[in-house]
Formats: sequence, structure tokens, C-alpha cells
Amino acid sequence: MNNSTIPKVGIIMGSDSDLKIMQDAAVILKEFKIPFELTVVSAHRTPERMVKYAQTAATRGLCVIIAGAGGAAHLPGMIASLTTLPVIGVPIKSSNSIDGWDSVLSILQMPNGVPVATVALNAAKNAGLLAAQILAIADESLAERYSTYKKQLQQSVDEKINHLKSEWPNEFDS
Amino acid sequence: MNNSTIPKVGIIMGSDSDLKIMQDAAVILKEFKIPFELTVVSAHRTPERMVKYAQTAATRGLCVIIAGAGGAAHLPGMIASLTTLPVIGVPIKSSNSIDGWDSVLSILQMPNGVPVATVALNAAKNAGLLAAQILAIADESLAERYSTYKKQLQQSVDEKINHLKSEWPNEFDS
Amino acid sequence: MNNSTIPKVGIIMGSDSDLKIMQDAAVILKEFKIPFELTVVSAHRTPERMVKYAQTAATRGLCVIIAGAGGAAHLPGMIASLTTLPVIGVPIKSSNSIDGWDSVLSILQMPNGVPVATVALNAAKNAGLLAAQILAIADESLAERYSTYKKQLQQSVDEKINHLKSEWPNEFDS
Amino acid sequence: MNNSTIPKVGIIMGSDSDLKIMQDAAVILKEFKIPFELTVVSAHRTPERMVKYAQTAATRGLCVIIAGAGGAAHLPGMIASLTTLPVIGVPIKSSNSIDGWDSVLSILQMPNGVPVATVALNAAKNAGLLAAQILAIADESLAERYSTYKKQLQQSVDEKINHLKSEWPNEFDS
Amino acid sequence: MNNSTIPKVGIIMGSDSDLKIMQDAAVILKEFKIPFELTVVSAHRTPERMVKYAQTAATRGLCVIIAGAGGAAHLPGMIASLTTLPVIGVPIKSSNSIDGWDSVLSILQMPNGVPVATVALNAAKNAGLLAAQILAIADESLAERYSTYKKQLQQSVDEKINHLKSEWPNEFDS
Amino acid sequence: MNNSTIPKVGIIMGSDSDLKIMQDAAVILKEFKIPFELTVVSAHRTPERMVKYAQTAATRGLCVIIAGAGGAAHLPGMIASLTTLPVIGVPIKSSNSIDGWDSVLSILQMPNGVPVATVALNAAKNAGLLAAQILAIADESLAERYSTYKKQLQQSVDEKINHLKSEWPNEFDS
Amino acid sequence: MNNSTIPKVGIIMGSDSDLKIMQDAAVILKEFKIPFELTVVSAHRTPERMVKYAQTAATRGLCVIIAGAGGAAHLPGMIASLTTLPVIGVPIKSSNSIDGWDSVLSILQMPNGVPVATVALNAAKNAGLLAAQILAIADESLAERYSTYKKQLQQSVDEKINHLKSEWPNEFDS
Amino acid sequence: MNNSTIPKVGIIMGSDSDLKIMQDAAVILKEFKIPFELTVVSAHRTPERMVKYAQTAATRGLCVIIAGAGGAAHLPGMIASLTTLPVIGVPIKSSNSIDGWDSVLSILQMPNGVPVATVALNAAKNAGLLAAQILAIADESLAERYSTYKKQLQQSVDEKINHLKSEWPNEFDS
Repeated sequence: MNNSTIPKVGIIMGSDSDLKIMQDAAVILKEFKIPFELTVVSAHRTPERMVKYAQTAATRGLCVIIAGAGGAAHLPGMIASLTTLPVIGVPIKSSNSIDGWDSVLSILQMPNGVPVATVALNAAKNAGLLAAQILAIADESLAERYSTYKKQLQQSVDEKINHLKSEWPNEFDS
Repeated sequence: MNNSTIPKVGIIMGSDSDLKIMQDAAVILKEFKIPFELTVVSAHRTPERMVKYAQTAATRGLCVIIAGAGGAAHLPGMIASLTTLPVIGVPIKSSNSIDGWDSVLSILQMPNGVPVATVALNAAKNAGLLAAQILAIADESLAERYSTYKKQLQQSVDEKINHLKSEWPNEFDS
Repeated sequence: MNNSTIPKVGIIMGSDSDLKIMQDAAVILKEFKIPFELTVVSAHRTPERMVKYAQTAATRGLCVIIAGAGGAAHLPGMIASLTTLPVIGVPIKSSNSIDGWDSVLSILQMPNGVPVATVALNAAKNAGLLAAQILAIADESLAERYSTYKKQLQQSVDEKINHLKSEWPNEFDS
Repeated sequence: MNNSTIPKVGIIMGSDSDLKIMQDAAVILKEFKIPFELTVVSAHRTPERMVKYAQTAATRGLCVIIAGAGGAAHLPGMIASLTTLPVIGVPIKSSNSIDGWDSVLSILQMPNGVPVATVALNAAKNAGLLAAQILAIADESLAERYSTYKKQLQQSVDEKINHLKSEWPNEFDS
Repeated sequence: MNNSTIPKVGIIMGSDSDLKIMQDAAVILKEFKIPFELTVVSAHRTPERMVKYAQTAATRGLCVIIAGAGGAAHLPGMIASLTTLPVIGVPIKSSNSIDGWDSVLSILQMPNGVPVATVALNAAKNAGLLAAQILAIADESLAERYSTYKKQLQQSVDEKINHLKSEWPNEFDS
Repeated sequence: MNNSTIPKVGIIMGSDSDLKIMQDAAVILKEFKIPFELTVVSAHRTPERMVKYAQTAATRGLCVIIAGAGGAAHLPGMIASLTTLPVIGVPIKSSNSIDGWDSVLSILQMPNGVPVATVALNAAKNAGLLAAQILAIADESLAERYSTYKKQLQQSVDEKINHLKSEWPNEFDS
Repeated sequence: MNNSTIPKVGIIMGSDSDLKIMQDAAVILKEFKIPFELTVVSAHRTPERMVKYAQTAATRGLCVIIAGAGGAAHLPGMIASLTTLPVIGVPIKSSNSIDGWDSVLSILQMPNGVPVATVALNAAKNAGLLAAQILAIADESLAERYSTYKKQLQQSVDEKINHLKSEWPNEFDS
Repeated sequence: MNNSTIPKVGIIMGSDSDLKIMQDAAVILKEFKIPFELTVVSAHRTPERMVKYAQTAATRGLCVIIAGAGGAAHLPGMIASLTTLPVIGVPIKSSNSIDGWDSVLSILQMPNGVPVATVALNAAKNAGLLAAQILAIADESLAERYSTYKKQLQQSVDEKINHLKSEWPNEFDS
């Protein structure tokens, strides 16, 4: 294995049922050519695996961990307690969730001393983007790709503006 | 140390600032003559201590663990993931809490497979009583003390009823 | 009737429409070979039945009561007021519920003196597991079965990890 | 005891700490010269007293029951399950309440078949007024006193309008 | 028109889309043979109709008004401000409602002086029952029918208990 | 372009997926013959477009801006910070919204100095009506059309009342 | 009375206890030299006054109505139902409010056809500013004063920036 | 100015009243010897300053921006829309906030494409720590200081454990 493929970001989730949400982070990292790994680490069903994952993360070369979980979502906060790496938390609206409030509050409201960088409910895509922004600080080429991404975001809006213009009055863009 | 003083209940809390709430559990256990221990175990600041506490609890003789925490309150659920003993969770309304909702939901909404017996916000007293009820299943003398406690609860109301009777009309108790 | 089949756990619910949720508790108790009974006891439509159920529970041999209810869910708390046995409450998200908040708060927020061990919304399975943990305190064989259950929980995650490994990069488990 | 002093309204509350709120109902009933009684009936600490209170209420001559409680507030709903009389519920924001939501939802969200007439948080005064409105249906003299009360409500506003007029511009009342 | 068919209860609602909920109140009143009327009165689209409805209600012979509305639900409270009759409010979870909280709080949280007897979200059936309880105070025959209704409530549970007994262990009813 | 067709109202939205809600505002403005324009302006993806839109709005002849957005809905407030024109905000319940609370609070809770006139969740129709009311202050003919609209609102209820009368008893309208 | 002092804005509130909040609107209108009137109009205690106020508002010369209320806050919406003028609603966090949610939702969630321009909780100042923005559409001199106000808002921040610069590092403003 | 003092982190806040919260971030950065700048940037009162701040941030050498705001808190999200740098958002519970929910949701619920790394309510300290973790990825010496910080966190708990041991039974640490 050559260096460029050592994962820099670890994407973990409490359950494989979270994959349909969490794969959005993987798609973004692929798009930015950031090597990552993805697996299930359950705080409540595999606590020892969780401890080992967090404790070996930095030495294995990971720079950022993205952790998603639903309900009483302890995975992001517990990983954060066990590593010095920045941890990005993705609250997931699982079945039997109380409208997503449980996962949002379980991940966001960490005590002083142990931060988790929380993104919006189900926003694994933004977790991937945040990881890219963080890694881009020391990676100029990645920073350029991120700038390109932001321009494309804007361009995708421009197309919709043009489409709407054909159907609705619009003096601003005339 | 003789057998009767080996702690049967472990009372733990995420921070010593939780002691003013959590000592209510200790007071109840003393009242019921149930040996207990009490200490701080922080899920986020001392995760390895937490793992060790949970993993040794049963072999050290504990039967029930009462865990209190505020905010993103991961202690009760993580202890529950690491032991087979029943875990009672006490949500604490800490400063910067969002009205207590964060600790309530972080403790209550555990996934299938890993229950936490949650009591009301700040209700460490009820956590102590629940531990007593659980231990009383196999301890007839404790069960009797619990019955007495319930009768006293009722009597304490009777006194208030009499007091009110002297001030307000009350045909029911006439 | 021989002793081993006297029910140790009573599973009750406010309405037969709660059965689709509450049967998860029964399934778990069967799995752990814990004798139980299951019936409908409505706090609001059969209050006298409720009083009788609670008052005879201990003498009939029950050790734990699991009570599920939705909306203004008074059954768990009222049972707890009428027995010295530990009561496990299951909040149920019924139709016309305000997102489950009504049953969660009606069951959880019991006053000092009368605890209810509350589990997550619709989490009857966890109620069954909590009953098993409680009974295992004085039943070594059950305690062993519970340990086995926890290991199986972990193994079920291992299978999913392997499955994901075939599709996604994963240096941690390599 | 002559007939006119048999209580028509029973004011009950879960704890004597609720008296500072619940006495507002008594003050209103006195004002309307409606005989009432007032006492403590705790659903959770004196359940048998509660059953007896509800079951004898109609035969003792009560027409309406006003029940106030905080937290997991089961008193109004349980009384309603045990009597055919209309029950008015007063949610009380007790200490350790989750902002009053617990008592509001525990009282309001009764299942089909067993209504509780719920008033606003801490609104024992409105409970007294509602009882007066209900009794006034079959009591013309009371109905007149209620009409007078409504006019006085309006007049008390008129005085404030006049007071404000001396300080602030007001073309409407000029 | 003979006296017995003069409506005693007015059922009104803010919109005809509320009829699917509010007709449950009508069904109950028919069952109890209580004469009623039912129509649409919109606080926001027909405010003058609303004023006239409320102001003529008592003189037209109505004894109780049941008012249902969704969203910013002002109908029950405004009717209550314009009549001395007791008003029962039914919060309706309309489309674009914020989970029903808007209608619940708009109806429940009336200021001192102007009560609305609020029932659960969408609980028009309970509104009908509450009206029956109120009218039964001065109508012995209705009171008897109400007692019968409560017994039937209980019996409908008994049938379900029997049904469950054939499928699940139940020592309590053996 | 003659003067009468210079847009007076700008309808903007954060995303073209908001069009299905926001077009209700356009439909109302057409009905009132108020010239408008409609386009996408994203606070987060096209911030510079947003700044330019707001800064040129008054000089281009716009009198009112209607801005709709979902989730962390910053568009209405940011437009308001960049123009002196009145801004009407429409909270939209987008996918992954936490029940609409996020957009409601992000738009409503503006700091002192920078108001946004917020309407109900998804209520773009009311935003259009509010714009019409505002413009009608200085446009007598529009004010008349608004009065007509209000009468039609009332008449549309009258038709439903008649329809209900054929099916349900109704002494009020007899 | 000469024309320039006919009130253009009516500030009304449900109770004189709301004055400490609502006077912020008056202070702003004075600052902008916009003639206004201020009085108490209670939807629930003086409903007929409310009807008359709303129905005469336009003919008396008012252009905008600012209505503040707490709890089940019906005043803004009812005024809006009775006039064609734009109505600005100010939710007030009164005592016994459930954290302000009741007044926010009662004012904001108006049905289609009857908008209320809602501002933030207790934000009477913003209500005054919104009224000024609305009147400035047809009043160039007022529009200029509003532009000046916005510049002053910005300048008040500049002063604070300078103050902070003396205490904290700040390369941006260097 | 030598290189080591070019600020790497920008701490900005919507109002100087937020300083008492936001200075916690500055204290942490000082502790870690990370050069920073701190100033007021108001999204709503100084929008052009905000645009300029965000657009020049990367070229001025900033690597991370920490933005705190209360109420409808648009600053963090708007900064994120205008820069490619990672933005950490601190929700602040300002006066007139609806219990902090407004700032939490306004900052957290960002749309796909524009992440904000949100920390707990008022948790500026954690924002500082998160910035340190992010910078430590490419700064080994800082990474070591962070490891030391985590050890000290743990040691500060140890002291409290010892203190409690002298007062309460504790078999675990014996």
C-alpha cells in the first residue's frame, strides 16, 4: 500500500442501517480524492471495538473522524473522548427517534473539554465537505478543488435561475 | 471487610458538580441500609476509567449501577453497553443545558439491545428507590422496609390533609 | 402448575392496539426462558382492574411489571403507586400522540417517592431486557444467558462489518 | 348541615405545595358563592384515597371536580376514569418540571372515552370560572352573577384604558 | 319545533375540512340523544358571524359550545370571550400545522378570566363526552346513560382481554 | 417597458425546490394585478448575488421583497440587513427539516434593528396577501380589490355553511 | 387637529402589563416622527371594543396596526380578520407562558387568507421599524430617515469594534 | 510582523454582548499559543463588513473561523457561504432567545453544500478546542500540547475523585 491511499478520514456509524445516510460522506470524499475508510462501530453493542478504533486512529494515519448515529447517539462524543483528532458528528433520524431531537442533542451538547463538530440532521454530505475543508488547510491542491466545488455550487444555481426565467417574470437578471 | 458491607449499588456521576443532585440517591440507600459506593466517572474526560468501572462492576459484587449525567449525557448508556448489570440513568439539568431536554433524551433513547432504566429529570432520589425495589426482589427484609417506606409516604400526606382541614372546608374527610 | 411456570414478569398495556409494540417484550422474555403473563389493563377504562392487578402482583409471585401506554400514559405510574415491585414503563407513540412527547413525559416525570424505570419510545424489547437484567441479579443461570446475549449482540455487528468490508475500504479491520 | 352548604365542587391537588396555585380556584368559587371543599389527594402516594374520593364524589353531592397536579400529572385523568362527573384539570409547573410540558401533556392528552377539561398552565382561577359556568347552566342566579363578572372584567380594562390615555396619544377613545 | 329538539350543544369549526374530526362529537351527542347543531364559524374569515353566534348562543337555548380549530386556533377562545356558556375547545392537527403544537397552545393557554375547556389533539369524541357530562349534572336520565357508557367502555376492554387470553399466558384472569 | 409593469414585489427563494410553495405568492399577486418578479437567490450558494439583489432592489423599483427558505433559513434576514424595504419571510418545511422549527426560528427571531415580517410555515399565499395589504396603503384601487377579496373569503365560507346545512342540524342559520 | 397628527399607526396590546414591552414600538415611531396612538384592546376581555377598533381603523386614517399579546395571543389575528390594513403581531412572553411558544405560535400560524406579519418574541422595537419601512414606501422623506437609521445601526457597531481593538488582537481592522 | 503572529484563527461575534461567552475561545487559543484575532462582525447590522471579512480571511492567513451568534444566528452560516475555510459555529443563548433553540437551529441546520461545525450552546471553549484539533493535524508540536491538555482534563477529574473518597464510600478506588 502506498502512502497516498492510507485513509485520512474514517467514516464510522452505529449501525449498518445508517449507511444509506452516511455514504453521502464517502461520495464527497471520493469526489475530492481524499482516501477514507468506512465501517460500523457501535458504541453500545461493540464498545471495545469503539475504544480501539478511537485509540489507534491517529497512529494509523487518520486525520479526521466522521461519526454518525441516531437516537441516544453516543458514538461521536465517545470517539471524541478517546482521540485527539477532530470528530465530526452526524445526527441521524432513525426509526423511533423523537423527530431527530434525540440524536441532535446527544451529539451537539458535549461538555466543555470534548468538542464534537456537529452538522445538520442527516447531513453526512456536509460532514464530508467539512472534512475536506479541514484537510485543505495544509493541502493547497485540495484547497483549489474546494474552491472549484464552491463555484460549481453557484453555477448549479445559475442554471436553475435560467430555467425559471423562461417561465416567470424576472427583471433582476434581464 | 465483611460481606454485608461490600457495596451492592454503585452511584457514579459525570462531574462532581452533579453531587448536589446525586447524593439524594445515597441518602435513600443509607436509609434502606443498602451498602453502596459513590464516585465520579466521566465518560468524556476519563473514558478508560469508565470502561474499567463497568467491566469490573459485576465481579466486585455490585448488583445495580446508578449513573447521573447532564447535557450530552453518555455515561449511563455507555456503562450499560459495558456491563450486564441493570443501569439506572438520572438525567441532570446542568448549566447550559437546553432546559434538560439534552440529558433526558441522551439517556432515555437507547437503542434496542442496551436498556437504561431512566428516571425523571434530577430524580436521583427515585433512582435510589428503584435500586431498593430491584434488590428487594431477592431480599425479604428489604422488601418489608420498602413496604414501610410506602406507608410512610402515605402518612406524610395524611398529616398535610389534617393541616389543610383546619383551614379549608373538607366534607370528604369529615 | 409447577413453580417454574409461575409468571415472574407481568406485561400489561393500556390497549390491545399496543400489542404490536409490547409483544417485543414477550419475545425477549421467552428467549430468556423467563415465565411471564401478558394482558390488557387500562388505567382509564378499567381503573379497578388496574388497582387489583397492582395490589395482587407481589403475592401472585410477580417480581417485575412491564407497563406500556400511549398519550397521557398513566398506567406505569399508577401501577408503581400501588405496588412495591419495580415497574418498567414503555412510552408508546400512539395515533394522535403529539410526536410521542406526551407518553414519554407522562411516564418519565414521576414525583419523588414513586419511580418508574422508563425505556425509550416504543422500546418494549429493552423493557424485556431490563426485566431480565433485574431478575439475573439473583439467578446465576439467567445472568449467564444475559452475558451470552450481549456477546451475540456484538457478533451480529461483526457480520455486518464483514459485509461492509467487501464493498468499502476499511484499513481498521484489515 | 343545610343543603346550601353541601359542597358542589371538589378542589383536589397532588401535593400541598400546589396550594399556592390551586387556592385561586377556591377564591373564585367563594366569590360566586359556590360551596366547595378542598383537600390533598395524591394519585401516586395515596392511590386508594384517590379511588375512594372519585367513587364517592357523585353520591356525596359533588357536581364538578377540579384537580391540579404537576410533573407526570395523573390525578385529573385518574379521577376522570373513576367518576362520571366532569373533571377540570389544572397543569402545574412544579420544580423539576420540564418547563411545564410534562404536566400539560399528562393532563391534556387523555384517550378517547375519558375526557379531562384542561385549562392553561397554573390557571386554577380559570378552573374555578369554568366550574361556575358549568353550574350556571342549571342555576339562573349563578348565570347572572357570571354575566356580572364578565362585565367587570371588561370594566377593569376600561380603567386601564383611561389611565393610559393620560400618558399616550389615543384618537380611538377621544 | 318542540322543546326537546332545541339544540343544547353547538358544534362549530373553523373550516369544513375539520368536519372529518369534529363529526366524532356529533356522533357521541346523537348516541346520548342530546340535541345539537353543527356548522362552520370561522374566526378569521367570518368574524362577524362568530360574534353573532356567540352572542345569541345562550338566548337560543344552547348550554355548551364545542369549538374545533387548527393552526393559530382562535375560535374557541374568541367564542369564550363573547359568551357566558362553557366552551370546549378541540385542537385540530391541520395541514401545515407545526405537529399540532400551534392549535394546542392557541386553545389551551387562555388568560385568566376566560377559560376554555381543552381536550386532546383531534379528540372531538371526548369533547362530546365532556358536553354530556356537563349536561348530566342537571339531567338524571342522561347521567344514567353516561354511567352505562362508562360500563360499556370497561366491557369493551373485557372482550379484548378474553381474546388475548387465548393467545398469551395470563395467570391474573385465570 | 412601461411603468405599470415594473415589478413592485420581488419573490425570491433559496432553492428551486421551494417553488412549489412560493408560487402561491405569485398567484396571489397576479390575482391582484401587482407586477412582480420571481427568481432563485441562495444565501448560502450565491451570497454575492444575494447582496446585489438586496442592494439594487429599491433603485430597481421594488417596494416589498418576499423571501422564502427552509432549514437554517438565512435568506429573509440577510436580505433585510441589506435593504431598507420591508421583507416578508416565508419559513419552508424542507426535507431534513426538524419539523419546520428550524426555518421558523431562523426567520422569526431577528435581532432588534432588522425586522422580518414572518408568516406561517409554508404560507407563501399569506406573504402575497401581506404584500398586497402593504401596497394598498398608497393605492386606493388595490385597497378596494383587497376589500373585495376579504368579502369573497367570507362568501366561500357561506357556501360551505349551506352545504353542511343540508346534512346536519343547524338552528343558527335557520 | 391638523392632518399631520392623525395617527398613522395604531399600537394596541392585550393588557397594560404588556406596556413595558410594547412601548418600544412607540419610542421608534416617535424617533421617525410617525404619528401613532397607543391603547389597550383585549381580545378576550373586551371583544366588542376589539371589533370596533379594527372596523374603524382604516376610516380613522390608520395605515398599519401593531398588536402585541401573550399566551393564547388572539389579538393580532382577530384584528387581521376584521380589517384590510396590514397587521404586525408581537408575541409577548407573559408570566405563565410556556417559554413564549404559546404566543409565538398563536400569532404566527394564521390560516391562508388572513396574514399577520409576525416579529420576534418581545420584539416591539422591530414592529415599530417594520411599520416605518411600510410607510416609507410612499413617503420619500421617511425612507431617507430609515436609510439614516440603518447607517447609524452600522456605526454603533463600529464604535464597539474600536473599543474591542484596544483590548484584543485584530488584524482585520489594522 | 513576523510569521508566527499572523492570526490563524478569527474569532468573530454578532454583538459585543456575546464577548462574555466568546472570550472562552480566545482563552483556549492563548493557552495553546495559537495566534488569533477577535472582533465584532454583525451579519445583520454590518453585512458588508461580514462579506469582506469572509472573502479576505483565507488570503490574510486565517485557517479557521469561529463565529458566535444568538437568536436568528446567521453569522456562522453566512461566513461559511463566503469562504472555503472551515467555520465553527457557537450558538449563544441571548436575551429574548426562545431557550436557545433559535440560535442552535439557525446555526446547525445548514443546507447541503455549506457546512458549519456547530458546538454546544454557549460552548465557545469547545470551539477553541476544535480549532486547536484542526490546526494540530499539520502541526506536531500543537498535537502534543493537545495530548497534554487531554491528560490534564483527566487529572482534574482524579483530584475530585480523591476529594470525594474522603467523604463517601468508594470500593472501586480502594
